[in-house]
Amino acid sequence: MRKALFLAGDFIETPDQIEVTDPYSGQIIAAVCAANEKITAEAVDRALDAQPAMDALSSGEVSVILNNIASGLQARSAELTDLIIAEAGKPRLYARGEVSRAIETFKVAAEECKRLPHEIIDLEWTSAGKGKQGKLIYRSAGVALGISPFNFPLNLVAHKAAPAIAARSPIILKPSSVTPLSALLLTEIVAVSGLPKGAFSVLPCSRDAARKLVEHDSIAVLSFTGSPAVGWNMKQRAGKKKVVLELGGNAAAIVHKDADMDAALQKLIMGGFAYSGQVCIHTQRILVHESLYPRFLERYADMARAIPAGDPRDEQTRISVMIDEKNASRVRDWLAEAIDSGATAVTGNKDTDGDAQKSAAMNIAVEKISSYVAPTVVIGAGKGMKIWDEEVFGPVVCLRPYVDIDEAIELVNESRFGLQAALFSDSRSVIEHCFRRIEVGALIVNDATTFRMDHMPYGGVKDSGFGREGVKYAMLDYLEPRLLVC
Amino acid sequence: MRKALFLAGDFIETPDQIEVTDPYSGQIIAAVCAANEKITAEAVDRALDAQPAMDALSSGEVSVILNNIASGLQARSAELTDLIIAEAGKPRLYARGEVSRAIETFKVAAEECKRLPHEIIDLEWTSAGKGKQGKLIYRSAGVALGISPFNFPLNLVAHKAAPAIAARSPIILKPSSVTPLSALLLTEIVAVSGLPKGAFSVLPCSRDAARKLVEHDSIAVLSFTGSPAVGWNMKQRAGKKKVVLELGGNAAAIVHKDADMDAALQKLIMGGFAYSGQVCIHTQRILVHESLYPRFLERYADMARAIPAGDPRDEQTRISVMIDEKNASRVRDWLAEAIDSGATAVTGNKDTDGDAQKSAAMNIAVEKISSYVAPTVVIGAGKGMKIWDEEVFGPVVCLRPYVDIDEAIELVNESRFGLQAALFSDSRSVIEHCFRRIEVGALIVNDATTFRMDHMPYGGVKDSGFGREGVKYAMLDYLEPRLLVC
Amino acid sequence: MRKALFLAGDFIETPDQIEVTDPYSGQIIAAVCAANEKITAEAVDRALDAQPAMDALSSGEVSVILNNIASGLQARSAELTDLIIAEAGKPRLYARGEVSRAIETFKVAAEECKRLPHEIIDLEWTSAGKGKQGKLIYRSAGVALGISPFNFPLNLVAHKAAPAIAARSPIILKPSSVTPLSALLLTEIVAVSGLPKGAFSVLPCSRDAARKLVEHDSIAVLSFTGSPAVGWNMKQRAGKKKVVLELGGNAAAIVHKDADMDAALQKLIMGGFAYSGQVCIHTQRILVHESLYPRFLERYADMARAIPAGDPRDEQTRISVMIDEKNASRVRDWLAEAIDSGATAVTGNKDTDGDAQKSAAMNIAVEKISSYVAPTVVIGAGKGMKIWDEEVFGPVVCLRPYVDIDEAIELVNESRFGLQAALFSDSRSVIEHCFRRIEVGALIVNDATTFRMDHMPYGGVKDSGFGREGVKYAMLDYLEPRLLVC
Amino acid sequence: MRKALFLAGDFIETPDQIEVTDPYSGQIIAAVCAANEKITAEAVDRALDAQPAMDALSSGEVSVILNNIASGLQARSAELTDLIIAEAGKPRLYARGEVSRAIETFKVAAEECKRLPHEIIDLEWTSAGKGKQGKLIYRSAGVALGISPFNFPLNLVAHKAAPAIAARSPIILKPSSVTPLSALLLTEIVAVSGLPKGAFSVLPCSRDAARKLVEHDSIAVLSFTGSPAVGWNMKQRAGKKKVVLELGGNAAAIVHKDADMDAALQKLIMGGFAYSGQVCIHTQRILVHESLYPRFLERYADMARAIPAGDPRDEQTRISVMIDEKNASRVRDWLAEAIDSGATAVTGNKDTDGDAQKSAAMNIAVEKISSYVAPTVVIGAGKGMKIWDEEVFGPVVCLRPYVDIDEAIELVNESRFGLQAALFSDSRSVIEHCFRRIEVGALIVNDATTFRMDHMPYGGVKDSGFGREGVKYAMLDYLEPRLLVC
Repeated sequence: MRKALFLAGDFIETPDQIEVTDPYSGQIIAAVCAANEKITAEAVDRALDAQPAMDALSSGEVSVILNNIASGLQARSAELTDLIIAEAGKPRLYARGEVSRAIETFKVAAEECKRLPHEIIDLEWTSAGKGKQGKLIYRSAGVALGISPFNFPLNLVAHKAAPAIAARSPIILKPSSVTPLSALLLTEIVAVSGLPKGAFSVLPCSRDAARKLVEHDSIAVLSFTGSPAVGWNMKQRAGKKKVVLELGGNAAAIVHKDADMDAALQKLIMGGFAYSGQVCIHTQRILVHESLYPRFLERYADMARAIPAGDPRDEQTRISVMIDEKNASRVRDWLAEAIDSGATAVTGNKDTDGDAQKSAAMNIAVEKISSYVAPTVVIGAGKGMKIWDEEVFGPVVCLRPYVDIDEAIELVNESRFGLQAALFSDSRSVIEHCFRRIEVGALIVNDATTFRMDHMPYGGVKDSGFGREGVKYAMLDYLEPRLLVC
Repeated sequence: MRKALFLAGDFIETPDQIEVTDPYSGQIIAAVCAANEKITAEAVDRALDAQPAMDALSSGEVSVILNNIASGLQARSAELTDLIIAEAGKPRLYARGEVSRAIETFKVAAEECKRLPHEIIDLEWTSAGKGKQGKLIYRSAGVALGISPFNFPLNLVAHKAAPAIAARSPIILKPSSVTPLSALLLTEIVAVSGLPKGAFSVLPCSRDAARKLVEHDSIAVLSFTGSPAVGWNMKQRAGKKKVVLELGGNAAAIVHKDADMDAALQKLIMGGFAYSGQVCIHTQRILVHESLYPRFLERYADMARAIPAGDPRDEQTRISVMIDEKNASRVRDWLAEAIDSGATAVTGNKDTDGDAQKSAAMNIAVEKISSYVAPTVVIGAGKGMKIWDEEVFGPVVCLRPYVDIDEAIELVNESRFGLQAALFSDSRSVIEHCFRRIEVGALIVNDATTFRMDHMPYGGVKDSGFGREGVKYAMLDYLEPRLLVC
Repeated sequence: MRKALFLAGDFIETPDQIEVTDPYSGQIIAAVCAANEKITAEAVDRALDAQPAMDALSSGEVSVILNNIASGLQARSAELTDLIIAEAGKPRLYARGEVSRAIETFKVAAEECKRLPHEIIDLEWTSAGKGKQGKLIYRSAGVALGISPFNFPLNLVAHKAAPAIAARSPIILKPSSVTPLSALLLTEIVAVSGLPKGAFSVLPCSRDAARKLVEHDSIAVLSFTGSPAVGWNMKQRAGKKKVVLELGGNAAAIVHKDADMDAALQKLIMGGFAYSGQVCIHTQRILVHESLYPRFLERYADMARAIPAGDPRDEQTRISVMIDEKNASRVRDWLAEAIDSGATAVTGNKDTDGDAQKSAAMNIAVEKISSYVAPTVVIGAGKGMKIWDEEVFGPVVCLRPYVDIDEAIELVNESRFGLQAALFSDSRSVIEHCFRRIEVGALIVNDATTFRMDHMPYGGVKDSGFGREGVKYAMLDYLEPRLLVC
Repeated sequence: MRKALFLAGDFIETPDQIEVTDPYSGQIIAAVCAANEKITAEAVDRALDAQPAMDALSSGEVSVILNNIASGLQARSAELTDLIIAEAGKPRLYARGEVSRAIETFKVAAEECKRLPHEIIDLEWTSAGKGKQGKLIYRSAGVALGISPFNFPLNLVAHKAAPAIAARSPIILKPSSVTPLSALLLTEIVAVSGLPKGAFSVLPCSRDAARKLVEHDSIAVLSFTGSPAVGWNMKQRAGKKKVVLELGGNAAAIVHKDADMDAALQKLIMGGFAYSGQVCIHTQRILVHESLYPRFLERYADMARAIPAGDPRDEQTRISVMIDEKNASRVRDWLAEAIDSGATAVTGNKDTDGDAQKSAAMNIAVEKISSYVAPTVVIGAGKGMKIWDEEVFGPVVCLRPYVDIDEAIELVNESRFGLQAALFSDSRSVIEHCFRRIEVGALIVNDATTFRMDHMPYGGVKDSGFGREGVKYAMLDYLEPRLLVC
């Protein structure tokens, strides 16, 4: 299978190509055409040309287009689920969930495009404005560039495309080179949605071609989801663009002394190991009040060992291989480094964890695959170890006890990241205290750090990002306010 | 002292008059001119005439007027405090607080008048509106009538006048016949504030004259604060008017098992006995978790007995006489009825409570005044007793233990009223549960039922009221939306 | 055909019935069961019982229910169109349009139910609130009663039901006794929408039974669309209910000297004669600048005469019979009265207008039906004539010249009504001047007075109504704010 | 006079200094201490230390601080006016106006600090969020750096400081080295306002020291007002900071055929020559409909010649010297270049404009000062000439006729800038057409391009800027949203 790229409404074959591998089977399952600089430049020109057609759309018409895309995704959801499994190695349950969320993302955009935050501004506050009134209208800020990562090959593309379209901004998307297939399937749906030609391109391409786009003078908005190093560097090369960065973190959860432990365990197993922790808001660190710690650790480790591992196509599988061997190696190296420095892995693969108990029988097959990393619970980790300080982006969770809440808060904050954090407690004063003190974009109470709704404001502080996504909030970045004083 | 009434900008002497008595000394301290039907009718005509001048004001000009009134109140705050003490028998600390709050009420209005909730409405949702946009503008709804009670003779007048002026609605105020002096002093300030003549009248008058105003066809808005029976009856006689009713209640507080008892005691002594409970949101019923009940009751009764009673002019006094003997008698009758039905007064006046301990020495003088009712803590009260079911509007607080939170919620709700309630707890889930289940306008957590900020939405459900005050919210009632489709 | 009524989720046969007549054929086409007082009382009890189930719905669940209703209407739109034609005699084009709008109304509600105007309120403005924050949440205000008229048998029911459901308020609907069939068909759709049982009843009933409902103590909200006399009387009998009145008017349009005459003519022919003027915002009066008047009159009369009249089932028909003979007679009487007083009908039926030209051939059949009133253009009408002063609710349009814009504004305003008005002009200053001076709920620029979008705020001032409909705005009436101070 | 700088609450003497010259007298009037890199670094540290104290302030306390500053400015307004005249050469009328506006800016901030755009977010849109609610709270984004230009030495400092304080963000200000005195006087007022120490520094400094601040890692927000070249370069060097750029433009006004010519002339003389055009939104280009052009040109030139020039201290003076000779020379060079390329100066200094008429007698003195440039009206200018393409920032206005509105729109848009534009017309359709098509931050109808209210959103598109100021809008840049999911 060789997939054309989607250039401003047309499916185009190019000489260059990028091969796509199924992480579980290790087989090449497709090749996608890659854009060179000529094609990326043309995409920009065609996007600029499409702006007047976008501007001419009424909100009702934009809404219909976005709903058409949602319906198209719905109609092909089984196919999309299979594609996400195939290109990302994501267990079926989670792949299916991602498709549902992408549909929701477009549906939300279909509603929000009718609710731009236009304002009437009273200008009569002083005599200088007597008799005048302001009308503040939001319009497309211009052509957007969206760059998205491998881990949500459909929904993180949706989170660029849907708000851009809702804002009537033409958008050029560079999907992950590892998982470009879902984005290209989306183009087939967009192509028949009624969206003006030119307003949407999906261009798998080399890093160099992407770099040219990032620096392109005619692009007004850059929205990037990916690694912190790449993102912050882009900000400096982005010229006059508005920039949104959705980067990563090493999210922490606090399980306070009054927590509902059963609920916390269940949520945090999911938060820690869903999609092998390859999630920006993966629960990487769990801080447990000392009064609960021994029991929590025991049960958490047991539950981690019991997570059904296997072929992502199996309905029962909850963990499978990582995206590629390079990443699995990296995780193993980080674990080894931590163990060398005094940490202990109480569950996990044999090579990193000699005495971890055997996993369930069904796990045996996947365990032989070199890109598989078993759910690994680590104790004794801390500052100076990569699995504590950096974004592990793998199925590794560090547990650590604490004595009082301020100690826990300090541990959460001793990080250069600040995306989301979780707190399990029923105490209003503890919740408010943590909310005031923990430096994150969102504090999730009584759920995992991975909690996200597609319409909620989402994004980090510190090195975790710049700006917010979530349809309504993301739209603001694709819009420009225009004032009429009359 | 004989005070003129304020008719549309002019101070007018009338033959009729109402005498004003100092509740503490029992002396007549002033007479105020009373409006007859001719004068009330003229006030309406002059208010209608003032509408164009009001409409012509820019928001900045309205803001200056309201700030002028706030400054005027500030400049005369000592005088106003003394007047409130004199006409209402309100202890100095509370009288001074009322003046501060009235100033704040006008200041808030000076800000909110510049922030009407104008909207731009996207009309392009369907093809029928393509090319059209709506502009929703709020304008004065017309002449307003405000009727206010005795217990906050200045600030409850401010809560009618300030939002009406902010909305550019001429307003006619009928103050309480018992405490009209503060409102008339306010007119002296308004008279030099720059407000267009005719836009403000203060008319002490008989019930009959007031009735004519309530039914007057040219008045667009009626805002009444007072007793439930009078208020609900007015709604039916109000014709085509918009109606706001701020009535009373028998507010309850829950002290849950995890409450901070010291804080709860301190707040609820204030909530129960400030201004002898002559407050719409007076804490009339306190429900205490059984685990805390014995200790709470003991301490609460001790604190009630220790409340400094005396001359309202004394800086130390925290409780004094009630507004008049009729009300004191009514409270005594209700107490007697409750005691007959099995309740027990553990503190209070000797005649209602044989074995209550002696009050502190300073209380002796005031205790001889027949309109004084000492802080009375009652146990064993419940459904069927007026002090439990009706609005006691006196210094009576019923305490009662409960076993689980749903029982407490039921007790709060077994009332035809629903103004405010209080809850002392740090449990997020208990707070949310109570908020969802308790039928009140506002649930106050960890403070007394009497908590009110002048800019917050304030008002009750069930028989306690209709609509909301609090400057921004009250303004909506004096405004009418007007749509321009263009 | 005998249709059951819809009592709290069940289709119930009753002994009483109301017969429904096809206004065009004069045939009885159905009978509907009528509710007696026992049934209406039961509907209230069942609605109260349904409140907890409604309150328990998440916004997403309410949205699904409302979208299910929209889809159900879509699926049966042909049937609904035929039913509206049959029971209301509404020409097919307009009947079809009404069905589309009812679908839109539910779709809008499916979006707005997720966007209640909850607020966070900063309470730290003064030291009294330091450390506190308010959370203002909107909840169902309780059981609602909707009463709707004959002229939009589906969409005016939708405008009660959709916002009530969106607000999670159980609602009891009394449809017009003349056109109850569409509302009953809607119940079949609601019955399978997932709405909790009890939350929706449609009860055709006698005026007496309806009266009991209007006065029922357990109903919290009354929303009435219908005639001014009935509506204002209801307000006085409504007890403690919130009341919304959508009444009528004698809407006027101004055609200013700089108007685009072709556009004005086309829009105002539609505004004047669509559905025989049986529309609350029917263009009853057209004021034309003297410079355009002669030419405007000539063309308007020609166009009125050319309106295709006939069987409402015909695709081409644009005007047909009125709802019943009683109304047609009334219109004829009013015309006769006006002609007696000096007005002239330049088009219209022979009996009222001796020298009006013959209508087109196709009109002959319908002209023989006694409830048919031909498009009637009147000149020389004015104050003192019912066709000028009152709501004619028939195919009668009065034309009148004016000299300057202030004269036109005065003519618009010399009415006890103020629902909508229209203005044809491109002058910003004229538009703003008219918007400031014309007393109406909405001023429509460059379109007919009949312009309405289902999501826009809609309602009148003066005798035309009380409150606003339009989904988001109507929802506020079915909601009650609840404050949590924490 | 040697002025200390203001380092985190302390007045500090430093060895380095910057001399301040009175542009009119040419005399050095003061020296101000200059910060070196050690001091700027300390200011950052002290600002970081002040963050907790800022975060601890309630909105009411912040409001009091901001109102204290406003009152302080009011009390010293005469002194401030004189200082602005002295350091900036700004005519008294305009200097006085600037002080009033700075007071207003702080007053607006004192209101807006109580109205952060906190939101409650319904998370129950899908089942994944059932039972959850979001609370979106805005908090200080961290330490801010404000860099402001010479032309509004007080109010452009206020536009950085007031919103930063309102957002509770410590701010370090680098004033213009040419006009630092007003900013330093402001520090005396801030020092006694109650603002926590460390939250405000004013540091005149060298370009190198400023550059270090721009690149400082601990600063979260950079707000720059100044020249486009400097601003856009800063954006690239700003690292992870949020950046706001308020740059310049070559603003154009359209005088359409239906314009009120008297009003247009009066407004555009002010827009063109107030403060010698040293204003970002100075009206640099006027496009006049051909039907009005000859008469407009004649009258505009006459009015330009009649502008009272002279000593800025004189009450009558409306134009005086430019900020310095370098700028005056630049303007003269640009004029010469334009004249060489075919343009004609119909008014102005003799050396650029041989046959311009003599100015009024009072102008003679100022005309001898080399930094004075007389009001210069140019015809025949266009693309390729700096006075048309670039920001002239001097008293030069180009007039040009056009035939149809689209031609005028194209002329406005043939600029790399897009700050504000003006349109004189009463036609609604022309206004809407221009608003849709003209690429600017704000289109001002029937007033000059220089119209600005301090609370209105202000800022440009294209090369004119990035982001918006105006208190409420500027505050968003100093704030960071934080979400609590509960």
